[in-house]
Amino acid sequence: MSPTSIPMDHIRPKIERLRALRPALHDRDFLLTWQQSDETIAFALLAAEILQDLARAGLSARVFDTGLGVSIFRDKSTRTRYAFRSGCNLLGLMTEELEESSSQISHGETVRETAAMIGFLSEVVGIRDDMYLGEGHAFMREVAESLDESWREGVLVQRTAVINLQCDLDHPTQSLADLRHLIETFGGVEALRGKRLAMTWAHSPSYGKPLSVPQGVVALMARMGMDVVLAHPDGYELADEPLDAARRFAGASGGSFTVTHDMGEAFDKADIVYPKSWAPMAVMRERTRLLRARDTAKLADLEREALATNARHRGWECTDAMMSRTMGGRALYMHCLPADVTGVSCDAGEVSKSVFERARLDTYREAGHKPFVVAAMVLGTRFADPAGVLADVLERATPRRRG
Amino acid sequence: MSPTSIPMDHIRPKIERLRALRPALHDRDFLLTWQQSDETIAFALLAAEILQDLARAGLSARVFDTGLGVSIFRDKSTRTRYAFRSGCNLLGLMTEELEESSSQISHGETVRETAAMIGFLSEVVGIRDDMYLGEGHAFMREVAESLDESWREGVLVQRTAVINLQCDLDHPTQSLADLRHLIETFGGVEALRGKRLAMTWAHSPSYGKPLSVPQGVVALMARMGMDVVLAHPDGYELADEPLDAARRFAGASGGSFTVTHDMGEAFDKADIVYPKSWAPMAVMRERTRLLRARDTAKLADLEREALATNARHRGWECTDAMMSRTMGGRALYMHCLPADVTGVSCDAGEVSKSVFERARLDTYREAGHKPFVVAAMVLGTRFADPAGVLADVLERATPRRRG
Amino acid sequence: MSPTSIPMDHIRPKIERLRALRPALHDRDFLLTWQQSDETIAFALLAAEILQDLARAGLSARVFDTGLGVSIFRDKSTRTRYAFRSGCNLLGLMTEELEESSSQISHGETVRETAAMIGFLSEVVGIRDDMYLGEGHAFMREVAESLDESWREGVLVQRTAVINLQCDLDHPTQSLADLRHLIETFGGVEALRGKRLAMTWAHSPSYGKPLSVPQGVVALMARMGMDVVLAHPDGYELADEPLDAARRFAGASGGSFTVTHDMGEAFDKADIVYPKSWAPMAVMRERTRLLRARDTAKLADLEREALATNARHRGWECTDAMMSRTMGGRALYMHCLPADVTGVSCDAGEVSKSVFERARLDTYREAGHKPFVVAAMVLGTRFADPAGVLADVLERATPRRRG
Repeated sequence: MSPTSIPMDHIRPKIERLRALRPALHDRDFLLTWQQSDETIAFALLAAEILQDLARAGLSARVFDTGLGVSIFRDKSTRTRYAFRSGCNLLGLMTEELEESSSQISHGETVRETAAMIGFLSEVVGIRDDMYLGEGHAFMREVAESLDESWREGVLVQRTAVINLQCDLDHPTQSLADLRHLIETFGGVEALRGKRLAMTWAHSPSYGKPLSVPQGVVALMARMGMDVVLAHPDGYELADEPLDAARRFAGASGGSFTVTHDMGEAFDKADIVYPKSWAPMAVMRERTRLLRARDTAKLADLEREALATNARHRGWECTDAMMSRTMGGRALYMHCLPADVTGVSCDAGEVSKSVFERARLDTYREAGHKPFVVAAMVLGTRFADPAGVLADVLERATPRRRG
Repeated sequence: MSPTSIPMDHIRPKIERLRALRPALHDRDFLLTWQQSDETIAFALLAAEILQDLARAGLSARVFDTGLGVSIFRDKSTRTRYAFRSGCNLLGLMTEELEESSSQISHGETVRETAAMIGFLSEVVGIRDDMYLGEGHAFMREVAESLDESWREGVLVQRTAVINLQCDLDHPTQSLADLRHLIETFGGVEALRGKRLAMTWAHSPSYGKPLSVPQGVVALMARMGMDVVLAHPDGYELADEPLDAARRFAGASGGSFTVTHDMGEAFDKADIVYPKSWAPMAVMRERTRLLRARDTAKLADLEREALATNARHRGWECTDAMMSRTMGGRALYMHCLPADVTGVSCDAGEVSKSVFERARLDTYREAGHKPFVVAAMVLGTRFADPAGVLADVLERATPRRRG
Repeated sequence: MSPTSIPMDHIRPKIERLRALRPALHDRDFLLTWQQSDETIAFALLAAEILQDLARAGLSARVFDTGLGVSIFRDKSTRTRYAFRSGCNLLGLMTEELEESSSQISHGETVRETAAMIGFLSEVVGIRDDMYLGEGHAFMREVAESLDESWREGVLVQRTAVINLQCDLDHPTQSLADLRHLIETFGGVEALRGKRLAMTWAHSPSYGKPLSVPQGVVALMARMGMDVVLAHPDGYELADEPLDAARRFAGASGGSFTVTHDMGEAFDKADIVYPKSWAPMAVMRERTRLLRARDTAKLADLEREALATNARHRGWECTDAMMSRTMGGRALYMHCLPADVTGVSCDAGEVSKSVFERARLDTYREAGHKPFVVAAMVLGTRFADPAGVLADVLERATPRRRG
């Protein structure tokens, strides 16, 4: 759709629908989707959609005259880093990144301290911490509690919000962007009921990929009334908390959540497939231990063993043959990117070149929702009446470019 | 105080008081507090207070439509880096950091050149250069003189201001934030007259900490009519220039400035204590020489010796026993952070866990003044009539968040 | 000229002249000057002039309410990095830099992908890629084509523009800043007709300097009706494409383009001299091969040989004696900076201390045009009616600083 093809009359009713929702986000954090209420999830989805509409209409969504969004990346990131920065910029926040090499945020006492230091005039702190099992989410909570204390005690002029940019448990900006993509593709959230989504492990010549994407996806999609099938080889189990959430949500939503050890079985009649590599939890635990001990020799051993284990599952590749088993042979292919494409970025990876090439632009569209999801989270955590704020934005109708 | 609890009527009279001051800052630099006039110091304090009031009132202090603040950090920084960025953002400036690894700013001819290059469209250049005794301040002056020349010759469209973010002699954004904290705590600058402040060395298991914090603190506080006591072990003397300034100011202000080699004596009846480690000047000089010669072997020797020397003064710790000697046993504890807390961040440090824990939130409040001090300096150096600018800001009453 | 000395009446007629031009830039890229039409070049020059006038008049040229400018630097940069950031800031764009160490932009499939990822909400992507002969321009075209595809397919909400911040073939922000400097110095573009410009190689104790500055300068200046002489020792030839362009343009403009192997001959009666070191193309090709093979041993050999070759041409220095051969003994000295100044930044370099010192402030002025050239390119690529946009800016007359 071209930038100017979204009329304002198209956006207004969405803002009215947003107004009817009661998200529980103001002056809080966005850490795990399964701890958020249904209305909060609905809010994030609809606000992201409205913000995207405004961008396509060429309208500025600047709601901060000044302000900062601070990010802390404890792991590499291109897409999410860009999404955080552009999502903040969309609303008028300047961004900066805290380089931990020049701080002491990582241990003990100083988490509380640094949280206060970077919170003084900041609206949000976005954090990626997905390297250590059992730690990323705990770190984010510690930052959040420190901000709470400093806000309560009058140290901060505002309750800076923490936004999870991927932890060991969940990757909410990814799973909500994925869900936005499904909504756009299938024509609404109601259209997703009863759709079969196969979240499957896939082979990769690398190891140590986080578990948070599949965990976040199954927990969120089961909640939408979908039939979610999780498939992985024996030994590649995911954490209990998100799987329990997926089961609970599936029961409540009328969807289902099942687990299989057969990729093809998961693909059978699937409407959507999400084949993606992740590390065995035991490997991640051992890696956490060795990284902490800085035992480089044993880390090299672990990598060698893990790659050998991965290699035993080369058949877990999303090929044309595999795709032919899906609904009508043409399930929607999803990936959080970058994908390990066989013959392109590696010799034997998650997906064949022909499958990926057909889906390529679609995966870009999927990723393109992320900046708006981030912006929706900022809006929800910072404003008591986000729908009113967006109504004002629409009324003002300031062009993003004055041209 | 909560964000909305500052009424505009509370701010207006402060702006009127600001209007009566004649700071000598416009199109100049902020390098050393003792080279600034009393009215300039008074201006920086009051402007910082007004800017904090505006932030607490939720009002935008955006006074630049576009513009850049450039920073050069020649040493690690978390707090001051954040303070510079958030102080600039508060006024509407975008910030960027010059990475010297990708430039040639450090030697000879090219200081003049790089000053021009980064000055073209920049409002301020903030510099931290505290590693080398005798060099940080000299470097800042060289940048300032180069900007002068380029401005005079029409190369720059404005006289970009240099702001000292810590040099070998002074740390004015720290000492002014400290003073703002004292003013808030004791209820006004007049209430500080006759108060006893103990600026004392304290033990640390690290070496090479800059001398500029104690130097800046004694020079500034003696000027406020306080009874300033400097305490340190023999061999940990500070530079002459700030101590001479402290003596001179104490004479003029009716305060006093004394030096002792006994921590307990300094703490006796103190209203305020500031126990903080720094390196012996001789060690800093030798370190400068060895760093320059890249003599890693001798640097390791020096570190070993310096730590052994430090260890001889383990008794210089701010403990409960030490605190009990202060006025009413409850002096205000100050620190520029991060502190070396015994049993928390080190085995034996500057302060005991129980003393620090009681003071912790207060030290955050102390640090929280820094972004506003930076913004006050920017305001004073860039505007001929900063009080008028703030009056306009108050009149406009644009909310920082449109919500 | 002082900031306030530019009256608005002085700017208005320039905008009217701009309105008459038909640049071919909107929703396109700025990669090579010789692929741009005469009207596009005239537009970039005049728009940069108007933007500089507005800055000197203290007026804000903010035309974006929000928006991003992304940069990718595959080589060191101080001046151009600052120019990109300040040029973007001048128009209201926030900037961010893509660190490739945390991405996979460099190879194969993923260029397309990363182009989409960083393009979602970005107005421009500025790229420096000058290390590898035959690659920089190819990489920029690949990014541009990927952006085209994503825009066409509705993945992006806008056609993000690519701006060449130096490639293996051209350095358009430099050559256009150089041309702006000539126009200011000689009093208009018409005054440049028939002027003799000596673009000559000069000795340097470093190797591997890109060829794109001399290539860009000869191609652009020959187009302005100047008599361009290129001089270099045997073996230091430049690429064919820009030299062919220089010849073609010289024919069309009534200027000339000649090549000599004698520095003094080039300087004879020259109105402008541009003595600057660059690497022999054969060395650059071999270096590209060795860098790719990560053959550090052979790279060291190559450097040693290249420096020895350079040393054979120590006579290629811009000395007072050399300058005395120029028109009236006082040709305009130009350099893209930093220059290798004999006795200042090296023992034997491109230019003597006395020549450089006389020209120093002038080279700063030359560099000072670059931020405005970048801004002109952003304006031209992002707006269908850039003259109308600037007319609005002038009409609004918003001060850059509200003081």
